Amino acid sequence: MEGNLFSDYGKMGFGVLRYLLNPIVGVIDSGSAGKTIDEILPIPSKTPIVPDLESAHALGAEVLILGIAPSGGKIPQQWYPIIEEALQRGMSIVNGLHDLLAERMKAHVVNPKDQWIWDVRVPQFVPPIASALCADLPNNRVLFIGTDMAAGKMTAGLELLKWFRKKDQKVGFVATGQIGITITGAGIPLDAFKVDHACGAVEQAVLEQKDNDWILVEGQGSLLHPGSTATLPLMRGSCPTHLVLCHRADLNHLRQPEKIKIPDLKAFVALNEALASVCGTYPQAKVAGICLNTMNLNEEQAQEIIARIGDHTGIPTTDVVRYGAEAIGQALING
Amino acid sequence: MEGNLFSDYGKMGFGVLRYLLNPIVGVIDSGSAGKTIDEILPIPSKTPIVPDLESAHALGAEVLILGIAPSGGKIPQQWYPIIEEALQRGMSIVNGLHDLLAERMKAHVVNPKDQWIWDVRVPQFVPPIASALCADLPNNRVLFIGTDMAAGKMTAGLELLKWFRKKDQKVGFVATGQIGITITGAGIPLDAFKVDHACGAVEQAVLEQKDNDWILVEGQGSLLHPGSTATLPLMRGSCPTHLVLCHRADLNHLRQPEKIKIPDLKAFVALNEALASVCGTYPQAKVAGICLNTMNLNEEQAQEIIARIGDHTGIPTTDVVRYGAEAIGQALING
Repeated sequence: MEGNLFSDYGKMGFGVLRYLLNPIVGVIDSGSAGKTIDEILPIPSKTPIVPDLESAHALGAEVLILGIAPSGGKIPQQWYPIIEEALQRGMSIVNGLHDLLAERMKAHVVNPKDQWIWDVRVPQFVPPIASALCADLPNNRVLFIGTDMAAGKMTAGLELLKWFRKKDQKVGFVATGQIGITITGAGIPLDAFKVDHACGAVEQAVLEQKDNDWILVEGQGSLLHPGSTATLPLMRGSCPTHLVLCHRADLNHLRQPEKIKIPDLKAFVALNEALASVCGTYPQAKVAGICLNTMNLNEEQAQEIIARIGDHTGIPTTDVVRYGAEAIGQALING
Repeated sequence: MEGNLFSDYGKMGFGVLRYLLNPIVGVIDSGSAGKTIDEILPIPSKTPIVPDLESAHALGAEVLILGIAPSGGKIPQQWYPIIEEALQRGMSIVNGLHDLLAERMKAHVVNPKDQWIWDVRVPQFVPPIASALCADLPNNRVLFIGTDMAAGKMTAGLELLKWFRKKDQKVGFVATGQIGITITGAGIPLDAFKVDHACGAVEQAVLEQKDNDWILVEGQGSLLHPGSTATLPLMRGSCPTHLVLCHRADLNHLRQPEKIKIPDLKAFVALNEALASVCGTYPQAKVAGICLNTMNLNEEQAQEIIARIGDHTGIPTTDVVRYGAEAIGQALING
């Protein structure tokens, strides 16, 4: 994560630190080396921060995860020698960026039997054209939608996954982005599929999990964002029965471009519900809960806006990271 | 078009026969050889139908267009020897299918200076992430939407293009599928772009035409279709000021899957308008006209359904192929 511990680009690393089940022996960032993650970030992890790859390897690291997701998805030029060094030390690589490594770096692999280079963003199959097969499933399919990119859709999904598991529900998670795929070890890199295959990829990924009573589908992007296409294939491919809306509580416009204002949430909820059902042709999916990301607000501000948005929309609202997923989970089960 | 003159798969050929400005010397179909197109199809073209490539070449053919668009986009196995023969005769190839030819067939090119193999469906650029730049243009941007695939969106767009030209308007056409690109010689194969690049590709294609007072954006797919993603990036990339809805007048369900019923058109119009404007955040685009495809109806039936849908929706309605584009064109200019 060198240089990215305090940047939005670090979200790959933050997600992995919060949710990966495999142990993480160290985070590389020379600027914060010597501290632990929970000393500098609001993430409950005692993982030590180390100055370089050598130190991480000395702690027993077997895999190097590129812990960033920069806009454009390029690997920083100065990272290539470190990736080569990791391979020469016998480590494997998880790469969630658009630049691919498997072909380019295979010459540096010293032990092909045990080492691998996983380019997470490469689609692994060509699906058939989707045909609304999920609409006929008897289970519950929850799609996470957002007012913006990086609004907390994956985090909300993973917190609810934990909650459903704790309640002994049969629950599955369909990862649709590089971070979710890295954490769960499966899923589809939706943004890398062709437009023609997008709905079909989602449909196949949901059908693979069809024996669960609850399927949580990781959201991508937003209907509001001018550069975002993913909401539509997610809706058509999964034919959701429930939606959960995720929103950065401190923002009233997109982060980029700022000229796009975030509309009244009640109207935005209605638009998403209308698009999911297409005039009653598909299952009626209601927004069952609103997950606010109140990271940049203090306790009083957070509680105030949660109450205000809950009152205004009439929809159960909370910050699942700050206050737990109980309110949203119960709303899903009751609704 | 061998074997496809009476099939939906022939739509590439039909589009080319209707709208290509270059002369077409012959259509290959051994079953109908000896007739002309207008003797067997409702297309006003005297093009002779010939039994094989040799006959077409004898008529002066310089380019072989693969005149089909089958579901799945595969080139029939038995066509490969014909494509090789065409190249060996010094002809060039236009290929709008998913199977690519440029690499595979280049060994058969006999005169690389004058011959080319154009794989229309290969994206030619990686666009920046779209940022609603078209919302700031002062011109009119008309997006064609549909109730289904193959509802006549491209045809409606090209008929209106002719109409605007006849009225001496500064008008441009953004082709977004293989047929439109083949006919106009430019455009983006939207279904072959990655999900991440879809909005940006549309935005760039519209910006290239920004000096026109009217920009007609070829539609793809439908919000209603479970396998269709394109409507959303078309809306976000072009930020339309007007929509034109295209609908097969004789159908009340999708052709595939039939279980999806076509909803009340008034409600479907409202959904498309709401999605285009996203709660007033983007330009308010109204459906200015409805283009019915009445191909399978007789004169009386066609006039009856045009009147009925026009009355019900309150929107100017016609079949632009049967009755001309005047009603829709005037509605756009007045509205």
